[in-house]
Amino acid sequence: MKQFALIGAGRIGKVHAIAINSVANARIKSVCDVHEPSATALAAQYGADVASIDSVFSDAGIDAVLIASATDTHTPLLKRCAEAGKPVFCEKPLDLNLATAREAAQAIDQSGIVCGMGFNRRFDPQFSRLQQRVANGDIGNLETLIITSRDPAPPPIDYINVSGGLFRDMMIHDFDIARWVLDEPIHSLYATGSCLVDEAIGSAGDIDTASVTLRTASGKIVVITNSRRAVYGYDQRIEAFGSQGMLQAMNNSETNLVFSSGAGVVSEPPLHFFLERYADAYRIELEDFINALQNGSKPLADHNDGVASLQLAEAANASLQSGAAVDVENF
Amino acid sequence: MKQFALIGAGRIGKVHAIAINSVANARIKSVCDVHEPSATALAAQYGADVASIDSVFSDAGIDAVLIASATDTHTPLLKRCAEAGKPVFCEKPLDLNLATAREAAQAIDQSGIVCGMGFNRRFDPQFSRLQQRVANGDIGNLETLIITSRDPAPPPIDYINVSGGLFRDMMIHDFDIARWVLDEPIHSLYATGSCLVDEAIGSAGDIDTASVTLRTASGKIVVITNSRRAVYGYDQRIEAFGSQGMLQAMNNSETNLVFSSGAGVVSEPPLHFFLERYADAYRIELEDFINALQNGSKPLADHNDGVASLQLAEAANASLQSGAAVDVENF
Amino acid sequence: MKQFALIGAGRIGKVHAIAINSVANARIKSVCDVHEPSATALAAQYGADVASIDSVFSDAGIDAVLIASATDTHTPLLKRCAEAGKPVFCEKPLDLNLATAREAAQAIDQSGIVCGMGFNRRFDPQFSRLQQRVANGDIGNLETLIITSRDPAPPPIDYINVSGGLFRDMMIHDFDIARWVLDEPIHSLYATGSCLVDEAIGSAGDIDTASVTLRTASGKIVVITNSRRAVYGYDQRIEAFGSQGMLQAMNNSETNLVFSSGAGVVSEPPLHFFLERYADAYRIELEDFINALQNGSKPLADHNDGVASLQLAEAANASLQSGAAVDVENF
Amino acid sequence: MKQFALIGAGRIGKVHAIAINSVANARIKSVCDVHEPSATALAAQYGADVASIDSVFSDAGIDAVLIASATDTHTPLLKRCAEAGKPVFCEKPLDLNLATAREAAQAIDQSGIVCGMGFNRRFDPQFSRLQQRVANGDIGNLETLIITSRDPAPPPIDYINVSGGLFRDMMIHDFDIARWVLDEPIHSLYATGSCLVDEAIGSAGDIDTASVTLRTASGKIVVITNSRRAVYGYDQRIEAFGSQGMLQAMNNSETNLVFSSGAGVVSEPPLHFFLERYADAYRIELEDFINALQNGSKPLADHNDGVASLQLAEAANASLQSGAAVDVENF
Repeated sequence: MKQFALIGAGRIGKVHAIAINSVANARIKSVCDVHEPSATALAAQYGADVASIDSVFSDAGIDAVLIASATDTHTPLLKRCAEAGKPVFCEKPLDLNLATAREAAQAIDQSGIVCGMGFNRRFDPQFSRLQQRVANGDIGNLETLIITSRDPAPPPIDYINVSGGLFRDMMIHDFDIARWVLDEPIHSLYATGSCLVDEAIGSAGDIDTASVTLRTASGKIVVITNSRRAVYGYDQRIEAFGSQGMLQAMNNSETNLVFSSGAGVVSEPPLHFFLERYADAYRIELEDFINALQNGSKPLADHNDGVASLQLAEAANASLQSGAAVDVENF
Repeated sequence: MKQFALIGAGRIGKVHAIAINSVANARIKSVCDVHEPSATALAAQYGADVASIDSVFSDAGIDAVLIASATDTHTPLLKRCAEAGKPVFCEKPLDLNLATAREAAQAIDQSGIVCGMGFNRRFDPQFSRLQQRVANGDIGNLETLIITSRDPAPPPIDYINVSGGLFRDMMIHDFDIARWVLDEPIHSLYATGSCLVDEAIGSAGDIDTASVTLRTASGKIVVITNSRRAVYGYDQRIEAFGSQGMLQAMNNSETNLVFSSGAGVVSEPPLHFFLERYADAYRIELEDFINALQNGSKPLADHNDGVASLQLAEAANASLQSGAAVDVENF
Repeated sequence: MKQFALIGAGRIGKVHAIAINSVANARIKSVCDVHEPSATALAAQYGADVASIDSVFSDAGIDAVLIASATDTHTPLLKRCAEAGKPVFCEKPLDLNLATAREAAQAIDQSGIVCGMGFNRRFDPQFSRLQQRVANGDIGNLETLIITSRDPAPPPIDYINVSGGLFRDMMIHDFDIARWVLDEPIHSLYATGSCLVDEAIGSAGDIDTASVTLRTASGKIVVITNSRRAVYGYDQRIEAFGSQGMLQAMNNSETNLVFSSGAGVVSEPPLHFFLERYADAYRIELEDFINALQNGSKPLADHNDGVASLQLAEAANASLQSGAAVDVENF
Repeated sequence: MKQFALIGAGRIGKVHAIAINSVANARIKSVCDVHEPSATALAAQYGADVASIDSVFSDAGIDAVLIASATDTHTPLLKRCAEAGKPVFCEKPLDLNLATAREAAQAIDQSGIVCGMGFNRRFDPQFSRLQQRVANGDIGNLETLIITSRDPAPPPIDYINVSGGLFRDMMIHDFDIARWVLDEPIHSLYATGSCLVDEAIGSAGDIDTASVTLRTASGKIVVITNSRRAVYGYDQRIEAFGSQGMLQAMNNSETNLVFSSGAGVVSEPPLHFFLERYADAYRIELEDFINALQNGSKPLADHNDGVASLQLAEAANASLQSGAAVDVENF
């Protein structure tokens, strides 16, 4: 039985609580949150205690820490995990600052602790199968990868203000998918973006619509498009094209019911948002992490993946400013 | 917290154990099985005790009984539940003999206990939504209902021998779906069937391929087709056609991944069999039953639905013999 | 160059005129119609002359006759073709009376003329490919065949009154499809039907909603369902199920454009009616007939297919009355 | 009756001959080709005469010229049409040199002749409906446009050598589609490309895999991806995403037949190549041109569209070299 300390009892903390609870041999021992009533409520729901962060690191009964608190707490907490030798699973992003993220990753590497990174999409059964089939050579040599990621609606402007911008907050998932499906490093990157959805986002200095083109050294091309709004639901697709064929991961809907009327043939829209689309993925990523704890294996996504995606986000910001492609290794 | 006695620790018993365990406020208190090692193993897995059937009925800590034992034990156990005043959830079929089933149903009615019947397909999210939309009038007046149900492979001949035949064992689910989606009683029935899949099934006096046509008094038509084998997987579809449109519940597959190659555009086959296709349905039917226990509501499918479907199965056997349509009320 | 006399310049005559004109090496030489202005207009459109029926049979320049006039003229005209030794392509149905149809078919057989029958659906590219793949063994042994045929809207009651009823007028196409896809004769038949769409149809003694179950000697099962109305368009599908798989011929729409909005994912409805759905088929059946003229081969559907489908329609009427399955050979 | 001189009796000339012949009120009067046997054969097929180019321009019976000869003959012939006042329909590209193309376009504008440009994809029923629905506001404000265009197999290297390169030869169609669907001019462009399909293409100084990102002044984003090879067939799709929804034009296949077996659920691959996919479009573009001749309207695509797409191709070549986005107006 692996006992977790869950740091952060907000929306994403609750998602991880459900996930931990659904995994055999795992339970939540302690919950921490700066907002104590949240910690108390969540702890009560799972028979856990409320703890301070300090006590977590001194509690020998805690087998692993799950960080689901605000982004700016991630690297300080990760460093404490490294110091305390506590295995840790951390929500993305690692940090909004690349240098800080690298420093934390180095500390983790030196400590040797197991660290899982919350790139949940790698655990989506459909994306996961696509990646496996590409790796297996089903489409021959991968040549072009097209990733579509659109949120149903933009977040509140308060969130935008602390998000680090579209590339660090939203497209970071797609950068991770690109790195994971590709079998070679990304060499250069071109980014463009616009504010088309909500003027307030533009006023906050951010964009809500973007396209990024990545290239590997051998010339493979990745195109990512993002939008902060899709009225038909959460649009999450991957198309991998290669010398022997194409694999397409499509959207999922609640059911496959089809309604035919004078207005046409109507299928259900994509699942609304990430909690619905990635419900299974959140459970499977915890299983993968616990498996890593038990077997000493590497989690499918770790802190170094967190750094690498943030590096691409910084490169994208630079390209957006300059209007030219940039070399990723310069970041 | 509702505490269950689970009678039957075989394949379907395990399915229900998973379902009970996944429902908040429910747990397995006792497991009974004539094969004691099976009971012991399953009880251990869920922290339950092993009990004799007699002790179940005298244990005030048991809030409900779940019957997942052999078909011929269903009505005796149901009568004991009625006598003991224990709410009960019973796997289908109620019994292979219609008179016996009616007798048990009468006992249940007289006792007033809550009784749920394991017609799992009513709880499939897709079928459930189809039924709701038909009831809601989305297709206007329902006129034709086409139900397709094909198993991936025939069961062992030992199973066929005790199954009661295709109509009582397999099509009984489709009879229940027809009754549930229709808004008026079934009046007459024509059945035909063949042995095309496995000669051993024919030698055992059964059929493996069948078609049944049902009619309501107002002339609505239902067509059910069954096969004991579909090489592409478990084929479970409903098409409801009415004056204002059509609703089609399609098969589900593991993922929506699509592979295009020189051989065509390939989607995944339907989920293999009932454990995969109806995994959610098994959980939702338990939630419905527990909800009925808590709120005194009627379960979505109950013992009288068990009787009515068995009546249709007997009518189908008679029609198969005579080659003519039969009046359902004569059975 | 094969020169045609086109008898009948109404709606279906015009369809065949387009078809003849589109086939290389074929032209319309003469047009006949009891309503002379119709004949004149159609003749003018294709540079043909207007002719009397008598003159057609004495004109050595006429290579073939295409009968697209009223149903009750079909057998008299076919007999004249047989007497005159003129090859003929005849719209379905051969006749509404089975004895009369058989007599005409016998005359055709004795004369040795080439006779094509307008079972246009055999020439639909999708249905045609399904039939070929079934014949090729792609699904192993054919076991169940499910044919769906729904018109977008019922015809005027005047048409119903002279149509011969749903089985002779509408389902006759489906009977032909069943005979064509099956590789063995149909042995017995059960029919049921209702008036659900339009009371006037019932008052005229006809039905508008029907289901027929066919069986072959070896036990293969065919289910046909018909409706005179489908608000979403012309619904024409075939599902062939066998020991090694399933083939499904689906509806076609004008384009494959997909629209996603908050209301769901909308595809286009099926093509509106037979002129749209079978536009290609009407051309291909003429090509097949002209090919038969040139090579002395047998048309894909001929007068004996016309008789056999009418026989099934009569059997269906008898079964509808009796409520029992009937042996087809008794008709 | 509009009489055409067809210049060029090769593969694409034959496509246009079929198209002219299928349009009511149009015929081929004369065929010209430097390879006289080709001209003679095609002329014979359509009852046309073989003519010299000089005679075409002096023949008052010629209502319009269709240019389907080698690319380097396009602008000289267009200028002669302008001088002779002959309406003309010209295959794409206008020319491989932008200055030359502009000069020819100016001559056409000054002469006032009707000039149609062979951007056949605008006439594809599916693409056409997508454009109309976007223009109609069905998706609200267009924000992102994703165009996928992949040939089934690369052309012979001899063709590559005279093609002008991927952007002028292949992506020019996609540039035209982008201009047509957008409702505002393209402002800047970023191009990247690789040689992944065939090394010989790289040795010839060309690319076979490419991605181009276009931006309008208001920030709308267009992403085009091209490949010279798709083993599953001709992949031609458009996805238009906007504030109120998404429209997707999908591939077409020969039929909608679906085959389910143990290997999955298999649909047919996309139609093989442009002759199959755009068979209807080649006819419809001729109808549009003839309509323009008759009504004095503007063809849907004209010489200025030819210039504008070539301008984008030149800009793409420049961006490919520089690695930076370029302003389109500089070309």
